[in-house]
Amino acid sequence: MVDSLFKVKFMPSGRAVTVAAGASLSLAAHEAGLEVDSSCGSRGKCGKCCARVIEGNVSEPTAAEKTLFSDEELRLGRVLLCQRTVLGNCTVEIDQVRSAEDACLFHKEIFLKPPEKIDSPFSKIHLELSPPTVEDPKADLERALEPLRRDVKVDLDLTPSIPRILRKSGFKTTLVLFQEELIGIEPGDTTTEAYGIAFDIGTTTVAGYLVDLVTGRVLSSASAANRQARHGADVVSRITYAGQKPEHVHEMQVLVADTVASLIDRLLTECHTHIEHIYGMVFTGNTVMMHFLLATSPGNIATAPFAPVFTRSLSGKATHLGLRNLPPHTRFITLPNIAGYVGADTVSVMLATRIYERPGNWLAIDIGTNGEVVLSANGRLLTCSTAAGPAFEGGCISQGMRAVPGAVYKVDFKENPICSVIGDAEASGLCGSGLLDAVSEMVKFDILHRSGRIQNPDQWPASLDGSLRERIEITETGSRFVLVNGKKKVAVTQKDIREVQLAKGAIRAGIEILLKEAGITASDLDGVMLAGAFGSNLRPESIQGIGMLPDVPTKIITPVGNAAGAGAVMALLSKGDLDLASSLASRAEHIELSLSKDFQRTFLTAIDFGKGAGSWELEHSREDKP
Amino acid sequence: MVDSLFKVKFMPSGRAVTVAAGASLSLAAHEAGLEVDSSCGSRGKCGKCCARVIEGNVSEPTAAEKTLFSDEELRLGRVLLCQRTVLGNCTVEIDQVRSAEDACLFHKEIFLKPPEKIDSPFSKIHLELSPPTVEDPKADLERALEPLRRDVKVDLDLTPSIPRILRKSGFKTTLVLFQEELIGIEPGDTTTEAYGIAFDIGTTTVAGYLVDLVTGRVLSSASAANRQARHGADVVSRITYAGQKPEHVHEMQVLVADTVASLIDRLLTECHTHIEHIYGMVFTGNTVMMHFLLATSPGNIATAPFAPVFTRSLSGKATHLGLRNLPPHTRFITLPNIAGYVGADTVSVMLATRIYERPGNWLAIDIGTNGEVVLSANGRLLTCSTAAGPAFEGGCISQGMRAVPGAVYKVDFKENPICSVIGDAEASGLCGSGLLDAVSEMVKFDILHRSGRIQNPDQWPASLDGSLRERIEITETGSRFVLVNGKKKVAVTQKDIREVQLAKGAIRAGIEILLKEAGITASDLDGVMLAGAFGSNLRPESIQGIGMLPDVPTKIITPVGNAAGAGAVMALLSKGDLDLASSLASRAEHIELSLSKDFQRTFLTAIDFGKGAGSWELEHSREDKP
Repeated sequence: MVDSLFKVKFMPSGRAVTVAAGASLSLAAHEAGLEVDSSCGSRGKCGKCCARVIEGNVSEPTAAEKTLFSDEELRLGRVLLCQRTVLGNCTVEIDQVRSAEDACLFHKEIFLKPPEKIDSPFSKIHLELSPPTVEDPKADLERALEPLRRDVKVDLDLTPSIPRILRKSGFKTTLVLFQEELIGIEPGDTTTEAYGIAFDIGTTTVAGYLVDLVTGRVLSSASAANRQARHGADVVSRITYAGQKPEHVHEMQVLVADTVASLIDRLLTECHTHIEHIYGMVFTGNTVMMHFLLATSPGNIATAPFAPVFTRSLSGKATHLGLRNLPPHTRFITLPNIAGYVGADTVSVMLATRIYERPGNWLAIDIGTNGEVVLSANGRLLTCSTAAGPAFEGGCISQGMRAVPGAVYKVDFKENPICSVIGDAEASGLCGSGLLDAVSEMVKFDILHRSGRIQNPDQWPASLDGSLRERIEITETGSRFVLVNGKKKVAVTQKDIREVQLAKGAIRAGIEILLKEAGITASDLDGVMLAGAFGSNLRPESIQGIGMLPDVPTKIITPVGNAAGAGAVMALLSKGDLDLASSLASRAEHIELSLSKDFQRTFLTAIDFGKGAGSWELEHSREDKP
Repeated sequence: MVDSLFKVKFMPSGRAVTVAAGASLSLAAHEAGLEVDSSCGSRGKCGKCCARVIEGNVSEPTAAEKTLFSDEELRLGRVLLCQRTVLGNCTVEIDQVRSAEDACLFHKEIFLKPPEKIDSPFSKIHLELSPPTVEDPKADLERALEPLRRDVKVDLDLTPSIPRILRKSGFKTTLVLFQEELIGIEPGDTTTEAYGIAFDIGTTTVAGYLVDLVTGRVLSSASAANRQARHGADVVSRITYAGQKPEHVHEMQVLVADTVASLIDRLLTECHTHIEHIYGMVFTGNTVMMHFLLATSPGNIATAPFAPVFTRSLSGKATHLGLRNLPPHTRFITLPNIAGYVGADTVSVMLATRIYERPGNWLAIDIGTNGEVVLSANGRLLTCSTAAGPAFEGGCISQGMRAVPGAVYKVDFKENPICSVIGDAEASGLCGSGLLDAVSEMVKFDILHRSGRIQNPDQWPASLDGSLRERIEITETGSRFVLVNGKKKVAVTQKDIREVQLAKGAIRAGIEILLKEAGITASDLDGVMLAGAFGSNLRPESIQGIGMLPDVPTKIITPVGNAAGAGAVMALLSKGDLDLASSLASRAEHIELSLSKDFQRTFLTAIDFGKGAGSWELEHSREDKP
């Protein structure tokens, strides 16, 4: 039986694809190059893939949709893309669904100065050789390698083309080396054309940086949602999915490789760089992402003792990753990981911030879906990972979105309007920094109890302004605070506040445990660095306002940008930094929080918005609506 | 248009294949696994692929066939396989055509004692590891590599299977290393199962040796005709063919790889060895063969300054050679070459004979299609290559054949009968040793003039026995000496004698030039080693009888077997020997005979069968019939 094929058209982009009958609308959207947010793993729980079928034939509403939408909404065509299957040609209007291209906003700035000295593991050497003669009949390869005065391995793919390349260029040639291996031999002098790409594979976002290996400049950067997101928002959901069937590990590899391939296309197009001149790639990311990249199951990371398959730096041909658009000479390196939940991204942060050599005591916090904390103190490098969740990236938040036009990115109750929105757009949701500001302001204005509960009217402080009072909606189905009451209401719900609380509590607890392990207190800290594309955009005042950090002066808090990506760029430009990555990974001491006796107690204190010990535990059970 | 397909059946084996209309009978024979001798490069000149079409439809006789066969023979179905194409189902009887299996006779003896100490570049280490715990949550790979206490590269293909292998074996595992790379990880203790194969890729014959890497024993050996032979008998014809079209280089690679693959099958079947336990292969052979093996054009070796593409030792995955029946972990190494015409086989001979460390002055001669000469004298290692041609392997000889049943392998005019034949068979041709004996006896009995000419009756010595006189046939179309006058006449022709003369002359000239370069004479030699599967089977007395060697006592001449193959086995069993191969290749001084001012003069003297200076040049033009 031949499957029927139907056309699915997405508005407003007008992109259309043909899919088999029975395919899900999410699959169709993915095929159309549209990034669908599937934070809940396509279970119809998160409502992020909400859209509207304008015309055509799709499957009936599911129970999940009936819970989320009213009958009227369903009648008007409201659907969750993950819940419906295609039964005929149809047209679907998407609103919240973002195209992959939109997500790059945060990485446009070039955050790195070129290093003073470039000593990339990918190098080129131009040679003007003498042709063979009766007196000197040396083999072509030996002739080309002789000037190196050292033994290198030779990629066997090269030997067939060597004689032609040398003769057509009059024995003027450029050798391409990756560490101690000859990976290319080119006619003439091509030493000015050498590029590499550094990738930071985040659970939520993948960022790529196109680097000129000659000048050391980052020429372009781009980011895209990690296509694995359709199988869950956090690493644990992804591990669960991958563990269901052996072929799921392969699928996860293909999804991340596809994300990387699309970024490569964008980076090269933007800079008019020829793909033949891409010689190397450096990948950083958390341990689970590094496993998926190498088609290796991270299954054992999910349960104690959380043993990964590998932590070391590995390297190979780009074709091994299924990146078939790259030339056969392109090599890749994965940076080393420290433990199951402290990955190469943390090593990159150490590298980029030079935290290991800073005098005094320094803290670096990489805020992503996992929050990794590094403490350099008393000559020790202590690390831990906290399950912050995707709240700061807009995930698991009712109206959360990435920092794209329409997102509330700043909230200040003393301003009018209280919200700032990215771009010249109507507010349609809020991104991480907006959320954090909002919660911080609600704490400051005593709208929130220290436990995190939105206070009942009888508990509101007398000083609370009337315009703010109006924004607080106390209902049976859950309280919320309305930030924008425009065309679309944008609000922070009690549940959103709980997500923020859990996230900041986890990070705070991690910090406290590392400080204790190092035998210092917060007052001994000389600096706190906030890393991560998202973390760097959070306002230090708000971070302190919600108590994510211990009590330190605001002036010692510095956002450092996507330090993980910066570290990968550094490894691409310096053999020394690449080697250093491995020695830092070995040197780092990893504290496994889930096994720490102190963690539970510390965490219960840390989620509190007040200064005292945890009252949350006492109050939590009776106050929140589901 | 769909091509018509026809069935071609070969007798007496009964093997049948289906080929497209228009395919040559040689191709059909190859497809049927039958080795067709195409010494002339399928030009219909050598007559070696003679067969008979019993029934069916093939193309008309060609001009080449009409020259070789009488009308009567053609009427009876006589064909050259290379000249006819298939036009319908047919049955072909082959006589001279040998199956690949027949060619192995000469390698059955195990010529090597296991080395005292085995230190193969392919090694296994059994480890009993502790499983990860909360106190020791190290990654699987780091856990497995820790006991090595050194840094090794890791084959990326391994990471996906590591967690399963470790857990299913209770963390009892065996690591497989190729030099400093982890190429395998196996459950349990598999250290007793480790095999490798050494190959000597000769222009005419490919020999393989299955080696137990644990005991060092050669378990089995086999040889087969190099399938490239269909494109010419010597390296120059092969280079010419490969140069005609770019895809011909690829074809030559496939042909040698197919030959290797068929040998692997035979070796493994014979020893019931599982292919999964083949970890490494070492290849030796002449420089041109090493180029074809790596799909690299040896085109520039054909003309001065004879520059190869590479001489160094190279290594890679067996899959790179298209040997897809081997597991992905199998690696190969090619031994280093010295120059365009002095290849890895010569380095192997040096290694196997330990000529470099022998006190005094030693000569080693590897007699194959090229005759390589090595002289170790006064601390120098001098080498040269001589274009001996395939005469000693039965090539270019009118009734030449390999040393298989039916071949005259020994000739002694004082015996009765004068010929010894291999196996319980009627004589059907003569192999290299038989040819050499015959020529040597003809020289000894003054049947040949010192110039190589078969003497006219008026010049025969009075002492010449009547039974020998009867064997000399002087005709207008060329004189010959009949060795066997049985069911089939086996004779040595004047042209055959010229081939022997050119071959021995080339080798003798090479020896003289090396001796002169070293500043010694033949009387300074402490030993002469005859290497090569064929060379070793030539009788020292006959070798001296034809003057291939300078005047040295017979007792210092030692046949050493296929030293090239033995050297490859040694490299497979010892890292030290593998490294030594590279240093010997660098240390060897190569004398390019074609550029030597003395060569022509020395050669003209050397082809003479007498003791004096060359009379050949004077007599040659007027005495031989074509």
